[in-house]
Amino acid sequence: MCKIHEDFMLEAIRLSKENIDNGGGPFGAVIVKDGKIIAKGVNKVTKNNDPTAHAEVTAIREAAKVLNNFDLTGCDIYTSCEPCPMCLGAIYWSHLNKIYFGNTKNDAKNIGFDDAFIYDEIMIPIEKRHLPTIQILPDKAIEAFVKWENKDDKIEY
Amino acid sequence: MCKIHEDFMLEAIRLSKENIDNGGGPFGAVIVKDGKIIAKGVNKVTKNNDPTAHAEVTAIREAAKVLNNFDLTGCDIYTSCEPCPMCLGAIYWSHLNKIYFGNTKNDAKNIGFDDAFIYDEIMIPIEKRHLPTIQILPDKAIEAFVKWENKDDKIEY
Repeated sequence: MCKIHEDFMLEAIRLSKENIDNGGGPFGAVIVKDGKIIAKGVNKVTKNNDPTAHAEVTAIREAAKVLNNFDLTGCDIYTSCEPCPMCLGAIYWSHLNKIYFGNTKNDAKNIGFDDAFIYDEIMIPIEKRHLPTIQILPDKAIEAFVKWENKDDKIEY
Repeated sequence: MCKIHEDFMLEAIRLSKENIDNGGGPFGAVIVKDGKIIAKGVNKVTKNNDPTAHAEVTAIREAAKVLNNFDLTGCDIYTSCEPCPMCLGAIYWSHLNKIYFGNTKNDAKNIGFDDAFIYDEIMIPIEKRHLPTIQILPDKAIEAFVKWENKDDKIEY
């Protein structure tokens, strides 16, 4: 592994440690474009009372702001821990090119985080999940999708 | 299905249609606590240049702000479409009690959204995914988790 990749990961790890001192969870991430860090993120769930403010999501939001674009094609993410399903989803939606990670979801599980449990849940059919999930009014809901399909000037993403 | 559940879903669907007129994606969600809507969300990906601003994530952030708490135990979410992996992860992390949804991930796929693809990716091992995902420096990354474990006054979530 080239030193430059290690340097970016070391910065993500440094952030993950620093964030503990700041009262947050032990997670950090950086987003890199053209060999430079353009955004950093740490876990701010408890600090901001935002359950979605994981390090990767925070870094992605920041990078999108910096580039003024919801599409981060051409960027890589270095995250101190394997992304949870929420963060992995965010990485796909933002079209990041590559993920470098340090700790695994099982390392996270071992210190009390739900990452592995959520992966398990997502992989099983809705009706077998712990979280009750019920479909209602599909005939009404689909009207919005028909409306979307028929719109000519929509911005796709 | 009781009328009250249908009324909450009808509001989520109304938001999903209204959002198309406002230039956003065809998705809406509401969060309900004690029989009342406490937060609403629509897809603001293109409007805010935020790839994480799906309707459910937006509603969850708003609900957490309203309750001043990252833990939304006791709340249900009504979303016009089955949550994507990012939103489903956010729902687990925020400890919502129940999901009601209208359209399915395949309905979303049929109008050009990546939900089903991302589900497929998450379910396969890292080394088989389209998105290159590489572990580096695990020996350094784990230091943050050890530090977290040894911290006495941490706020767990």
